[in-house]
This record gives sequence, structure tokens and C-alpha cells, in this order.
Amino acid sequence: MESNKSSQAYPMKGGDGVSSYTNNSSYQKSLAEVVTSLIGEAIAKKLDVQNFACGHPFRIADLGCSIGPNTFIAVQNIINSVQLKYQTLRITSTPEFQAFFNDHASNDFNTLFKSLPADKQYFAAGVPGSFYTRLFPRSSFHLIYSSFALHWLSKVPDEVMERGSLAWNKGRVHYGGAKEEVVMAYKQQYERDMHEFFNARAEEVVCGGLVVVLVPGRPNEVPHSKCIGNVLFEVLSCCLLEMAKEGRIDEQTVDHLNIPIYYASPQELEEIVNQNGYFTIDRMEGLPHIAEPETKHAATRLALGIRVGVEAVFKGHLEEETIDELFDSYSKKLAQVPSAYSSGGASIMFAVFRRNNINVIKK
Amino acid sequence: MESNKSSQAYPMKGGDGVSSYTNNSSYQKSLAEVVTSLIGEAIAKKLDVQNFACGHPFRIADLGCSIGPNTFIAVQNIINSVQLKYQTLRITSTPEFQAFFNDHASNDFNTLFKSLPADKQYFAAGVPGSFYTRLFPRSSFHLIYSSFALHWLSKVPDEVMERGSLAWNKGRVHYGGAKEEVVMAYKQQYERDMHEFFNARAEEVVCGGLVVVLVPGRPNEVPHSKCIGNVLFEVLSCCLLEMAKEGRIDEQTVDHLNIPIYYASPQELEEIVNQNGYFTIDRMEGLPHIAEPETKHAATRLALGIRVGVEAVFKGHLEEETIDELFDSYSKKLAQVPSAYSSGGASIMFAVFRRNNINVIKK
Repeated sequence: MESNKSSQAYPMKGGDGVSSYTNNSSYQKSLAEVVTSLIGEAIAKKLDVQNFACGHPFRIADLGCSIGPNTFIAVQNIINSVQLKYQTLRITSTPEFQAFFNDHASNDFNTLFKSLPADKQYFAAGVPGSFYTRLFPRSSFHLIYSSFALHWLSKVPDEVMERGSLAWNKGRVHYGGAKEEVVMAYKQQYERDMHEFFNARAEEVVCGGLVVVLVPGRPNEVPHSKCIGNVLFEVLSCCLLEMAKEGRIDEQTVDHLNIPIYYASPQELEEIVNQNGYFTIDRMEGLPHIAEPETKHAATRLALGIRVGVEAVFKGHLEEETIDELFDSYSKKLAQVPSAYSSGGASIMFAVFRRNNINVIKK
Repeated sequence: MESNKSSQAYPMKGGDGVSSYTNNSSYQKSLAEVVTSLIGEAIAKKLDVQNFACGHPFRIADLGCSIGPNTFIAVQNIINSVQLKYQTLRITSTPEFQAFFNDHASNDFNTLFKSLPADKQYFAAGVPGSFYTRLFPRSSFHLIYSSFALHWLSKVPDEVMERGSLAWNKGRVHYGGAKEEVVMAYKQQYERDMHEFFNARAEEVVCGGLVVVLVPGRPNEVPHSKCIGNVLFEVLSCCLLEMAKEGRIDEQTVDHLNIPIYYASPQELEEIVNQNGYFTIDRMEGLPHIAEPETKHAATRLALGIRVGVEAVFKGHLEEETIDELFDSYSKKLAQVPSAYSSGGASIMFAVFRRNNINVIKK
């Protein structure tokens, strides 16, 4: 059982420095609060707790949990909703809760463990490994949650890295604005990954259990080239190319750099889930993108947010100092093109998948 | 659920430097190899796998696992023995295995996770927290292992730290050679801790499940003052007092320093287990202490071994440099008094406790 096979890990930045995840995850946090009521509703309406084995612990996982505190808030919200459900159903013996915090082995689990809430109402465990592989024993989980993680592919698609391939992504770090072959390579990698994801979760989740996903995506009607995430990475590619032109970095470095992120549409995800066949879509909707007001400060914050997310991709390719320069010029560029982050073309996908009671595979 | 209440954590030294646990745990390793056959025997003869729920994962925990690699070897050995048992009993559906690696939240779980064997045959999880509290949900574990950890008390007994108390441990860092009140304070702390340990494990382990313990101890017939571990700490106290006399450290610092380790005899442990009532002693025996040959090198290695174990206790009280000096003079002193580490008075206790099928509490 090799949990990291062929999977690249780009952990969020640990510690509590100015560019750490802890200090730059307020966007995720406010969204998590919005999402709380949606999760509560899903648990109240769709989670079949009466069918779960009595006396057994209720197991929750957060896949791609990073280092907190959002993961602790999310897990506690889930527990509150489950407890409320037990009360509403007048089931007197509420189960014990066990929460599994998952991320790549390169995640800073030490920080995560040290910041576990003192008054937590669950038994905590950390699980290292890619969520595109099996992480847990068969039929042992009741609710698996993943927030702002499933847009990360398991790896950069091979073709994109191959000089000579039609999908070679020269001069760009993402598929935004790239030729169709590059977009297709990313899309196909996403489809393969999501099949692995649902196959693994299908084994782990009990019948009637839920997989709840929150992930940045692209509205059905928005083409890739207009998706805000893609535009933001296009601007980043520009900054890198400018640095290459100025001789501050090697142009080949830009060719080698690719960010393994894909912004899927609800329609794409729906097709994958239906083809996979293990889960029923209980709910899927795009939450509106909350546009930042157009200020210099907004551009700085956005640049920092992107940096926290993708910095690990650049490490090993660029010096720390060069990365500083890159995001400095990125922040300035974003302030010049506020349309990159203030106009339509993005959404947060919220989805609830319920594990089917039968193991019929439709594919 | 507060997993760290009133419990002091002194993690083994992480990383891979010259004085790290990874590079100084060969003694534990060779012993673990000796113990493998004993564990195999316990699993073959005493583990009632036929009574375990079919189709459920087999859950193992290593309490006080440190950072590896011994914990990985131990867990794999346990799995091999369980698989052999299933084969012998001709049960075709072997379960999936889930292994939980536990240690204090201050343990270096990042290193542990990064060094998980690539070919592991189990789902891995890390669990931060003191094993003197509940760590896992009710009735969910089949075999809980703990190696070289249970001699650590949850804390220094309060009385030992109180100036004016009869048990105030002035001028010493341990109860070895101390007055009777100090010894009693340590003994009573050990008894309280072990009751907490067995109460917690009784909740977590399924009926018929095993708790397997390997812990440095004291043969029944050996008084505390002759126990090698105690003698070794007495020599350490001497070194500290000498440094105080030379004005290199404050004498009060020595008064404040206490190592929360207790070397129990099989008889003491047996009494606690019987009084606790949740477990039956399937096996308990002292493995012989393998004396190091009397060489300067042996003293150096021993001093380093002790340093790895107790260094964390000294941090915050003494400067890094002072700790270096201390263990330098300790190593020299040990070379002068080879009897401290070469003569009788120590044993490794190996014990197998089986969870009773009924919940009758004898206490």
C-alpha cells in the first residue's frame, strides 16, 4: 500500500510567518462559515444515521486539511450537526467521534497537532498521504469532507512537461490561455484523478455516508480563458516571462514550471460522478465568487493568497529571493489589471455525494 | 476531551543528528528483535481473532512510538503474526490493518510520517496525546503495543517539587538514593498513572484484545538503590551537583530538576493490573539485561543513550551548552564507575495483558 505513488505534494506554508497559511486563510474561513449551514442541512436531510451500526464511533475525515484552524472549525461544525441530528431523532446514545486530519506527508502535522483545540469533542488522528489513493480501511467512515483541496491534481500531466509533445506548455505555468492540447491534458488528468478519488472513497465510506466537497471551480457557462483562477495564473506566467526577458531567470525554468491545478465546472464533475457510479449527487451548486473591492491592498492580499497556495510548486525551481521578486511584481501587475480578480468567471463549488447502498458500478 | 491534561511531555530528540533518537536506538532495536518471537507467541496463543467482528479492520496502536524506525518494525511484526494466525486458522478473509502511531503532540510526527515504509501493508495514522488519557474510540482496538515508554510518569509527583514537603527531592534529579518519602511519591505517581493507563485501554480494546508492553524495570528482588537505571541517574545527580559546586549552574536548578521515570518491578505491576481488574495477565517476565562490556566506548554510548532519553527534561532549565558539558562529564564519570552499568539490578519487563470478556471491576 503505497499512499504517495505518483503524487506530487505541495504543502501549504507552515509556521506562522507573514506569508503562512495560518495568516492568509481568512477567505477560506469566511466561506467555511457560509458553508456551515449547507453542511448542517446535508447532515439533517441526507445522512442516514439510523442505518449506521449502533455503538460504533462516528468517523470524520478532512482531506487536504492543511494546518488549521479552518479544519478544526469544519470538523466541529460537522460534529455539532450530527449531534443535533441524533437529538432530533431522539436517539439517546450519541456515538463517540473520531476525526482524521489528512494531507500530504510534507504537510506540517507538528503544527496541526500542537494547535488542536483543548476542548475538542473527538479523538484526533493525522493521516499522511494523497487523497487520490486509499487512506482508510473499508467501510469505516461516515462523513468525509474536503475544502479547497480537490482542485489540486495528483501531478502535472506528463504531456505538458514533454518538449515535442503537442501539449508541451512552453512559456506558461498553467493551462489558462494555453493551446487546446494543454487544456485537454489538464482536463484528462483531472478526470483520472477524480475517478481515483471516488473509487478510494467508495471503499472507505459506509453505505449512506456522505462526501462533502468545497472546491474552487468554473461556472458551466464560463470558458477556461475567462475563469478568474486561470486569468490569475496567466498574469503570473506574464510576470515570469518578463523576468526571463530581463535575464533574471532562465526561460527554460518557466517551461518546466506547471501548476497542477484544474478548475472544473459542476457539469464536468457531475459527469465524472455519474460515470463512476458509487455515489449519488445529493446537492451541487456554485456559491457566488465574492469579488474583492478594487484596491491596491486587495491586489497585495490576493497575490499573497496565491503565493501561499502555489509557492511550494516553485521551490526547487527558483531561489527564495526570486520568488519574493516574482510575487512582488505579481502584486503590482494585479493592481494594474483589477479586472483579473474583480469580474465574474469563478465560483466555489459546493457538493454533497452520498454513498450508494448497492455496489453496482455503472461504468 | 483534553488529551494532554496534567501530563508533561519529553519527546525523544528528533532529526538525525549525532545525539538523535534515530541514531541511538539500536539497543531498543535489538531488544525489539528478541521480543518479536514473544509477541508472535502471544498472538498465536492468546489473541482470540475468531471472536473479532468479521470484515472490520484490525487496529493496532504503538503508544509512545517516537519517530521510528523501531515502531515500523514492531507494527510490521505484529501484522505478520496476525496474518500467520489467520492462515493457521484457515480464515480466508484476512482483515485490513490500520496502525496508529501515538506519542505526545511535541513528538516529531513530521519525521515519523516522512519515514513511513513505502511498502507498508497498513493504513497509517498519527495520534498526538498522553497515553495516560483516552486516545481512541471505545472497543475499536485489537492489539495495543508500547515499547520503552511506560516507565515515563505522566508528570513529576507534586510533593517532590515542593520545598518544605517531606518528599522534597533536594539535590537530586531522581529517586535513586533519595529518602523513602521521595521513593514513595514516585511509586504512588506510577500507581495512579498505571490505573489511568489501564482504565483508558480497557475502554479502547475489544474483549479478547491484547495490550503488549515492553518496559525497563527492576527485578523483584532488587532494591531501588541497586537498580541500574536509578544508579545511572544518581551518577547524573552527582555530575550536576559538582557543576553547582563549581558555580557553573545554580544549585536550586538541581533541586527543581526531576526526571519523571519509575522503574517498577513485575510484582508492583501485577498488583496494579489485578487491582484494576479489566485485564488478565497472560504473560509477564523479565528479559535479562544485556550488560555492555566495560569500555570507555560503552560509557560514551550509554551517556548518549541516557541523554537522548532525558535531554528534554533539562531543556528550559539548562542552556544547551551546559547540557553538553553535563553529559561530557557524565560520560567520563560513567567510565570511572563501570559497575554503574555492568552489574545486575535491571531487567526489561515483557508483559501481555488480555482484555477480560466481562466488565467486572475488581477494585
